[in-house]
Amino acid sequence: MIDVIALDADDTLWHNETLYSITQKRFRDLLARYDQGYGTQQALYETEMQNLEYYGYGIKSFTLSMIETAIKLTGGRILASEVQEILDLAKEMLNAPVQLMDQVEEVIHELAASYRLMLITKGDLLDQETKLARSGLGGYFRHVEIVAAKSVEVYASLLEKHQIPPERFLMVGNSLRSDVLPVVALGAQAVHIPYPLTWVHEDVQTPKAPSMGYVELKHIGLLPKYVERLR
Amino acid sequence: MIDVIALDADDTLWHNETLYSITQKRFRDLLARYDQGYGTQQALYETEMQNLEYYGYGIKSFTLSMIETAIKLTGGRILASEVQEILDLAKEMLNAPVQLMDQVEEVIHELAASYRLMLITKGDLLDQETKLARSGLGGYFRHVEIVAAKSVEVYASLLEKHQIPPERFLMVGNSLRSDVLPVVALGAQAVHIPYPLTWVHEDVQTPKAPSMGYVELKHIGLLPKYVERLR
Repeated sequence: MIDVIALDADDTLWHNETLYSITQKRFRDLLARYDQGYGTQQALYETEMQNLEYYGYGIKSFTLSMIETAIKLTGGRILASEVQEILDLAKEMLNAPVQLMDQVEEVIHELAASYRLMLITKGDLLDQETKLARSGLGGYFRHVEIVAAKSVEVYASLLEKHQIPPERFLMVGNSLRSDVLPVVALGAQAVHIPYPLTWVHEDVQTPKAPSMGYVELKHIGLLPKYVERLR
Repeated sequence: MIDVIALDADDTLWHNETLYSITQKRFRDLLARYDQGYGTQQALYETEMQNLEYYGYGIKSFTLSMIETAIKLTGGRILASEVQEILDLAKEMLNAPVQLMDQVEEVIHELAASYRLMLITKGDLLDQETKLARSGLGGYFRHVEIVAAKSVEVYASLLEKHQIPPERFLMVGNSLRSDVLPVVALGAQAVHIPYPLTWVHEDVQTPKAPSMGYVELKHIGLLPKYVERLR
């Protein structure tokens, strides 16, 4: 029996990784005339990982890492006008329309009638808040938690804060690393809904055991039937 | 009678604006050889204000605005190595030790014995969380709220979320704009503790009326006596 259904936002409710993909492509194009063979994509990822403990997640962090990578990969030859192009990419990302995934609106509407819904997402505070506002879904969520990272400790403190017993909590998201494994580790339930694109950082090997305490659904449209069966 | 005392963090519990001041000075020095008369400081502030709706508050936003300002003020002549210097300034800021203001530790320790303490701060999620962890004060706060902005609406929703009647809530902070006026507007109480340095953006004219529903204390050491008198 579930009381609270928590959902991830980026790539669970709305498209996000596609936006990063498009920007990464434009970043590669920007540096193409400099590129010395070492993969731009790989270099950017390494910079992001090195900066994660300082910057955390989100578009601003990603942008600072793009600029740092551009300086490094071009040996300092990158032009100020090209740095400005990177800044422009950031603002385009922050301004991009929120594109809900298929069936999200109906599913959230239906679930909100029977469950306390919670949104748990990481990234830039302001960016996530404005995306939620623009999504039109804000009214369905009883609690909105924007966190710096999604670890076992973070989920444990959210459950404690909202006084939710783990066995009555279900988390739904596209990332095994962030949305599923830490939740299962707490004895709560999780649903994994893969997104066609996964950021390397979130891409953990799917555990091989037949039952790891979570299920995988092909798309969010299947969620209401699944939770109905848990009653 | 007060149940909950909420405190701002930057420039209320620990020094922050001094860090921005030092960085702004180093930014001005960096651009000094380019400067065409238009004030670097003023140009940076204008860029920050234009970017506020996209970037929000915090060091990452400030850094992106420094880079944008540097490109603009130098007419695109800024060197990649100088952009890298700006990125280095950001990491130095993010790594700077947390310097508690005088008497903060004793005051928080004392207040925590009689009141539910809450921390309400704006800025980068990860940066604020790690500063709180490094401050050693984390254990004293029952609730920690890191918000994108401090408006009347935001305070209203925090009071509702934590089910705190306004008349039992006291907010303490250095910014009239962010910590005092929106709280007073809700019928709650506020204490203003000015910091020697105030960011222009937070620097509103002190209202002239003799009583605007808040008091001003010279330093945080005076807070326990003041709240004692409210009982």
